[in-house]
Amino acid sequence: MKFNSFLDDIQVYEAGKPIELVVREYGVKPEDVIKLASNENPLGTNPVVAEAICNNADKAHLYPDDSMYELKDSLSKRFGVESQNIIIGAGSDQILEFISRAKLNKNSSVLMSQVTFAMYEIYAKQVGAKVLRTPSYEHKVDEFVDMIEQNNPDIVYICTPNNPTGDATSKEDVFRIIDSTPKETIVVIDGAYMEYAAARDEKYKIEPKEIIELENVIYLGTFSKAYGLGGMRVGYGIANKDIINALYKMRPPFNITTLSLAAAIAANNDHDFVNRSIELNEKELLRYKEFAKKYGIEYIDTYTNFITYLFDKNLDSGKISQYLLERGVIVRNLASYKINAIRITIGTEKQNERLFKLLQEVIT
Amino acid sequence: MKFNSFLDDIQVYEAGKPIELVVREYGVKPEDVIKLASNENPLGTNPVVAEAICNNADKAHLYPDDSMYELKDSLSKRFGVESQNIIIGAGSDQILEFISRAKLNKNSSVLMSQVTFAMYEIYAKQVGAKVLRTPSYEHKVDEFVDMIEQNNPDIVYICTPNNPTGDATSKEDVFRIIDSTPKETIVVIDGAYMEYAAARDEKYKIEPKEIIELENVIYLGTFSKAYGLGGMRVGYGIANKDIINALYKMRPPFNITTLSLAAAIAANNDHDFVNRSIELNEKELLRYKEFAKKYGIEYIDTYTNFITYLFDKNLDSGKISQYLLERGVIVRNLASYKINAIRITIGTEKQNERLFKLLQEVIT
Repeated sequence: MKFNSFLDDIQVYEAGKPIELVVREYGVKPEDVIKLASNENPLGTNPVVAEAICNNADKAHLYPDDSMYELKDSLSKRFGVESQNIIIGAGSDQILEFISRAKLNKNSSVLMSQVTFAMYEIYAKQVGAKVLRTPSYEHKVDEFVDMIEQNNPDIVYICTPNNPTGDATSKEDVFRIIDSTPKETIVVIDGAYMEYAAARDEKYKIEPKEIIELENVIYLGTFSKAYGLGGMRVGYGIANKDIINALYKMRPPFNITTLSLAAAIAANNDHDFVNRSIELNEKELLRYKEFAKKYGIEYIDTYTNFITYLFDKNLDSGKISQYLLERGVIVRNLASYKINAIRITIGTEKQNERLFKLLQEVIT
Repeated sequence: MKFNSFLDDIQVYEAGKPIELVVREYGVKPEDVIKLASNENPLGTNPVVAEAICNNADKAHLYPDDSMYELKDSLSKRFGVESQNIIIGAGSDQILEFISRAKLNKNSSVLMSQVTFAMYEIYAKQVGAKVLRTPSYEHKVDEFVDMIEQNNPDIVYICTPNNPTGDATSKEDVFRIIDSTPKETIVVIDGAYMEYAAARDEKYKIEPKEIIELENVIYLGTFSKAYGLGGMRVGYGIANKDIINALYKMRPPFNITTLSLAAAIAANNDHDFVNRSIELNEKELLRYKEFAKKYGIEYIDTYTNFITYLFDKNLDSGKISQYLLERGVIVRNLASYKINAIRITIGTEKQNERLFKLLQEVIT
């Protein structure tokens, strides 16, 4: 059976290993497994959300309100935009997919930083588009401006804070890139971890309402991280309504579940949980920085709920993550991004202590 | 902003109206709204499933096991196939999307019956492919064989039982179409309502294990109908592993939610609920046939959990469905399929009685 030829060039995304796999493969008890691989919220599920899910469990047979009226209304109030500026996706991932499929074809190209979210490349390749990367892993404005001018890409991705490195791009720099981008090129600002960066330093805060007047910019956000709904798959795109209308044509009906809708509405109304998530993260992050300094590990200054430890030649990220995995601690080996590094989600105090203990064993 | 030109030709799918909309627009109390528009299970959510959802509500922050090991294992036992023959989608809808994007491009064409599931066309148009339809709404073998020979389409869709008409195609006829299809053309057997047809008459039963040896056939099933999980978005494709591997390249990670995974595993282990759903459906369907005969309404003999009433020139499906809607009963007007008909989900005894009362008012 022949398929579209661009499939030959697609690598399947390697997801963070689930707890079930560690239980199955290494015989670790489920309660002893600590997952610090997928940047899930260490506070767990917001009890308000768990209650909303239970209260709606008897509606699992009913399709969701496909207009997503209430969730869009709630987001429109939060961000000071209109509902018609919003599209909901099964994670902000799905909005990335809509953008790629609506805008790109085999003659297109997309621009992103050297090390950034893997799905930008995968969705581009799924329509046969060419992937261009700046030389640096950080979003360096001059590199972006030069490559935009030279290559006239169809999409420019700005992931801020960046995943899997954790560094953030200032609002000033983001707008310098936007200003240098032709109006027929879409600029995607992926703010999946924005809540953490914005709380730390206002200069990184990008508000969706500041871009909805622009004809070629879309802001993406998610409920998966600070809002603690990784398993429910709810994200959103905010842009001017011409972009939103085009993306709607790529949206399958009922693209989030009935319970995801209920969960996201509940989560969006509880800012206290988000604040507690950010506070815990800031506090524990300091310990990761201290640990790194103590053991001479280089790290990338992070504005997210994870930290990337970079190892020198004497240490191997693959061996380190395997050592941790076999003892029930899952982290993300970044070898597939071609860097000798591991990405660790900032967990609870107890989880982090266990990580420090094991990491100390394997690196010393 | 310019997008791919094929977007101009895409109509956004019109979903069945949700209960919330009727409450908002017509001021009907939520408890008085009866939704017979989306072929949801009138038994409601299986209590076993609701319990599984509640028990897992505190895992909403965790991404699902992206290998879907347990669900695929459970399905592989149910169908007598290997896990590697299975791909899970956010509804079988999403598998349709994977197939279209993996196989089709703007030079492709797809073949389907005159009136069939709307998403086949939408997904084809989302990649710029051409849509061909047989003259009849039923799947007439000779029409399919002729058009396959003349047009050499890239995909042939067989929806059995067919949505939104309800008629089924016998296994013998399905295999006659398969046998007449070139090996480079994918045959999609969409069995979303198969449980109802198979229970009624063995001759309509198509078992996935009978097609996995074939290099160009895929069987699709869903948890949305007889299994009562419409709101959870879980479907599956079963085919030989070369097809499955290609579709995996189009699958986004974490494409069903953590709770959908738990719900589907619980649902797949409870055959009793499915049997009760089918029994209720058979019993209430007889009353729909009686009602139609009493009032001289033509209907399509159905092998599903819905029935299509066809109206003559004196009656207008749009006016009838609007009359019902304003009184809190939602049915599906099929005018968008260019037939003067309504599609009604077979509900509970009480729901059906209310539908009969209102329908009698408006047609007499």
